Amino acid sequence: MMTITLTDLNSAGRDEFVAALGNIFEHSPWIAEQVAMGRPFAGVTQLFSAMKGAIERAPVELRLALIKAHPDLADKAQRAAGLTAESDSEQTSVGLDRLSDAEYEAFERFNNAYRSKFGFPYIVCARRHTRDSILRDFERRLPNDPAAETQRSLEEICRIAALRLDQLVAADDRLPVHGRLSTHVLDTHSGMPAAGIAVELIELADLGASRVVARTTTNSDGRTDQPLIGGRPVPSGKYELTFGVGVYFAMRGVAQSDPPFLDRIPLRFSVSEPEGHLHVPLLVTPWSYATYRGS
Amino acid sequence: MMTITLTDLNSAGRDEFVAALGNIFEHSPWIAEQVAMGRPFAGVTQLFSAMKGAIERAPVELRLALIKAHPDLADKAQRAAGLTAESDSEQTSVGLDRLSDAEYEAFERFNNAYRSKFGFPYIVCARRHTRDSILRDFERRLPNDPAAETQRSLEEICRIAALRLDQLVAADDRLPVHGRLSTHVLDTHSGMPAAGIAVELIELADLGASRVVARTTTNSDGRTDQPLIGGRPVPSGKYELTFGVGVYFAMRGVAQSDPPFLDRIPLRFSVSEPEGHLHVPLLVTPWSYATYRGS
Amino acid sequence: MMTITLTDLNSAGRDEFVAALGNIFEHSPWIAEQVAMGRPFAGVTQLFSAMKGAIERAPVELRLALIKAHPDLADKAQRAAGLTAESDSEQTSVGLDRLSDAEYEAFERFNNAYRSKFGFPYIVCARRHTRDSILRDFERRLPNDPAAETQRSLEEICRIAALRLDQLVAADDRLPVHGRLSTHVLDTHSGMPAAGIAVELIELADLGASRVVARTTTNSDGRTDQPLIGGRPVPSGKYELTFGVGVYFAMRGVAQSDPPFLDRIPLRFSVSEPEGHLHVPLLVTPWSYATYRGS
Amino acid sequence: MMTITLTDLNSAGRDEFVAALGNIFEHSPWIAEQVAMGRPFAGVTQLFSAMKGAIERAPVELRLALIKAHPDLADKAQRAAGLTAESDSEQTSVGLDRLSDAEYEAFERFNNAYRSKFGFPYIVCARRHTRDSILRDFERRLPNDPAAETQRSLEEICRIAALRLDQLVAADDRLPVHGRLSTHVLDTHSGMPAAGIAVELIELADLGASRVVARTTTNSDGRTDQPLIGGRPVPSGKYELTFGVGVYFAMRGVAQSDPPFLDRIPLRFSVSEPEGHLHVPLLVTPWSYATYRGS
Repeated sequence: MMTITLTDLNSAGRDEFVAALGNIFEHSPWIAEQVAMGRPFAGVTQLFSAMKGAIERAPVELRLALIKAHPDLADKAQRAAGLTAESDSEQTSVGLDRLSDAEYEAFERFNNAYRSKFGFPYIVCARRHTRDSILRDFERRLPNDPAAETQRSLEEICRIAALRLDQLVAADDRLPVHGRLSTHVLDTHSGMPAAGIAVELIELADLGASRVVARTTTNSDGRTDQPLIGGRPVPSGKYELTFGVGVYFAMRGVAQSDPPFLDRIPLRFSVSEPEGHLHVPLLVTPWSYATYRGS
Repeated sequence: MMTITLTDLNSAGRDEFVAALGNIFEHSPWIAEQVAMGRPFAGVTQLFSAMKGAIERAPVELRLALIKAHPDLADKAQRAAGLTAESDSEQTSVGLDRLSDAEYEAFERFNNAYRSKFGFPYIVCARRHTRDSILRDFERRLPNDPAAETQRSLEEICRIAALRLDQLVAADDRLPVHGRLSTHVLDTHSGMPAAGIAVELIELADLGASRVVARTTTNSDGRTDQPLIGGRPVPSGKYELTFGVGVYFAMRGVAQSDPPFLDRIPLRFSVSEPEGHLHVPLLVTPWSYATYRGS
Repeated sequence: MMTITLTDLNSAGRDEFVAALGNIFEHSPWIAEQVAMGRPFAGVTQLFSAMKGAIERAPVELRLALIKAHPDLADKAQRAAGLTAESDSEQTSVGLDRLSDAEYEAFERFNNAYRSKFGFPYIVCARRHTRDSILRDFERRLPNDPAAETQRSLEEICRIAALRLDQLVAADDRLPVHGRLSTHVLDTHSGMPAAGIAVELIELADLGASRVVARTTTNSDGRTDQPLIGGRPVPSGKYELTFGVGVYFAMRGVAQSDPPFLDRIPLRFSVSEPEGHLHVPLLVTPWSYATYRGS
Repeated sequence: MMTITLTDLNSAGRDEFVAALGNIFEHSPWIAEQVAMGRPFAGVTQLFSAMKGAIERAPVELRLALIKAHPDLADKAQRAAGLTAESDSEQTSVGLDRLSDAEYEAFERFNNAYRSKFGFPYIVCARRHTRDSILRDFERRLPNDPAAETQRSLEEICRIAALRLDQLVAADDRLPVHGRLSTHVLDTHSGMPAAGIAVELIELADLGASRVVARTTTNSDGRTDQPLIGGRPVPSGKYELTFGVGVYFAMRGVAQSDPPFLDRIPLRFSVSEPEGHLHVPLLVTPWSYATYRGS
């Protein structure tokens, strides 16, 4: 994805500025138009704050139009007709382009139920979610009243916009839109960080298939060189993190039973704060292990 | 299954004695015949010892005949033709009556490879195994030389016999043929045993489907009223033990994230000593847990 | 100490019965006299229940006399003049016969303050306490009003009596006056119970010197042959339990740093339920350990 | 202590250079003289390497003179006569200026035994030790042969010199002479770092009195703002780290027993690598805790 510097945005002509930011809010360049006068912005935080201010000051009808400018989630017909590049990428990130026919139909039913109750599409910031957590979110929000859902939709729209802005604009400051999921393996049999442990992170799915999110190996510090998930929100949902400790201890010549009592250790946990820093370490011997939510 | 007391066996007529014990060793009543004279036996241990002695003293050809008297494992044709009640029950215990066609064919290939190399059927004490561990055992034994496999077959036959004898004869002493798998949940958030935790034990399978072995709930002592597996060998293999801690803490009103960080905790481990006592406890808070191989 | 069977008590003459039980309640044989008619008792529980009933039915003055029949705790003059054998043994159990002059004076001040406020001696069931917890109990009770302290004194008197009765009378049933403190060491480096670990239990004291309560070695099951404290209440107070793990791992040839990272591991904890079963296990490798309040 | 930059040392006159570094090796300015020609040095590492090279190239007699230029450890007469500022500071760091008469005599006996065997003083880099570990080191080295002790003395002298150089010279690079001891408290009852926990680090002594090395409180990240020991070697020896968890949980309103099962938790461990990074964390609930050697 192309990025643009905040400096360039500050010095650009008005039309150029609006063109660059016109789709930060889906099909709603009026927001960029409104804030163009406020330049120069000291940081992307200030820019984003101005854009949110424009929405808050906008008349009700315009806010509603903003909501209605969004596509349905996982709608086949809309996908065929073409989404904005941003929407397409967001829906793809959560696998909404790879649904089975049955899953497409489920989403269609949900979208229709929501739209027929509220008169506007169900909007959620897909990058903060797994498919399961979207369905859970949907089920929680459907009973809301229209005022609550209007407000909630605008919040989700701002989350979507913040992530789009974060990807597009390079500045000295950053919007607080990134989470992190990390691990660490300590071999308490030898009292050392466990290097060379195969680690796999799987996103578990009630709906559709589970999928591998990261597959890596611990380094000499017992950590992974990169966070398992980083530089983006950690999608809400269930995960399984597995550690190949049987092979690790075998390679080190440590006595184990045959087959080893512990081979691939699974840790299952849920993520509930996509912007949080979640650390899930493993303390392990061939005969015992422990884990905890660290930070 | 009918049982008979050791006292009755000691006082029975010779024919009656042989009839009762004739199939402790598959299709080989000569072993019971040989030991009938040794009565009375002080215990089932002494009885079994006498039967093993009869085998050790038997000429080579008779020992080989004993081996050949056993059916192939998981052989469709032999099943159709009829197994002894004992063999049928043993093969059923490990699910060899419920194989897919592909699995039957795999076993057939194994049996044929083994029989063509050694001239006698592959014998293993099925009650001490899962299907996966049988295949693993098979692969390890196939490269052996005939002398080693003859010896090994007799050992497996004695294990089979010991289990049959244990089930058939009621005595004051017991043969050491039973293992035990148990668990215990300690809630280290409240410092109390965790009562009412849903526990499920699954036998994991590389070959065929995993299956639930036990499904229970912890009692006020944090234990299960019965061992997860007891009164029989704990089959070698891989297991997953799951604990429904999310619901447990929710019922107690303990603050958790939404969804709970930990919901159903899986512990995966292997059993390698079917007659051993394996204790796999869980120490748990809503944010951490530990397990270890206890005793 | 002499014991007498409940059967003998049931069949004894009235005077003999009263003589045997006359000092279960300090200097108050009238309680035994009152219950003698209620014989035979089915168990010691029923006997004790009858004795408590006699106190409850007694007029206020008699109950007050029962309270006043007790000696001061740790009073030098009274010790010199002679305590009942029971009181002497109870005070000795908690070390009240081995106080420094300063400590005697502290107890004297406490006793006087209490007696001048309430008009009767401060009574506590010494066998359920350490010296520190007695002082703590004293400080908590001094602000009470006379009615509350009268009631509380009778409760303590019944606790004293229950322990005396438990020691004196042999019956099929037992009064629930015993607690237990136990430990277990699991070597999670080898996945086995840790045998041969030197274990020491120290009662920690703010007042006076700490003292060793038990010194033992773990058996092949990683436990101690006898509970660290058993067959009596576990006195309220602070304890330190130490485990000689450095020597243990050295004897097994396990690689450690020099000097070993862990040598004698101390666990410090408090006991608050003298009749409870407290289990304080240790899970240990040369580089890590964990403990928890078990049951 | 005054520091001088490497830049200034590189550009200083020869005499000034020698004056500045003359006592890096005790009373042995000839080493600085020899390396003065090698300037400029790219870093303090290169400078120190040159100084060690000068020693290696020096004739045997000069190396022996270097050894003999060192004072006895904890020698009263020598202290009275005056040590170099560096020696004084080093001996003071480990408490050798505060010994009891009995301890002084013990050191005198050791020094004399060593000197009468080898003909030169016992030298050890005091900043890397506690008093206990010095005595242990002494006992291990006394049986050595003279060649081994000559070599070992030069190694200790180089360690002393490296620490003196590190303190004196400011450069972009650093000599690897610093260790670190740190901790971290994770409250696994709430799943959060434990803030506000009182932490105390005590150096345990067999010889003389134990002493508090650090006393601090955990910050919002569950860590201490500064390492417990940092910016210097972590002296070899035994330590006790205590954590005031009883007060912490009480302040948070968490249900505990009365008195709390866990109040001040002690962790006892030994340091064996003064230049290593040792992390000793605590995972804790009111009813359980765990620790391990981390990194």
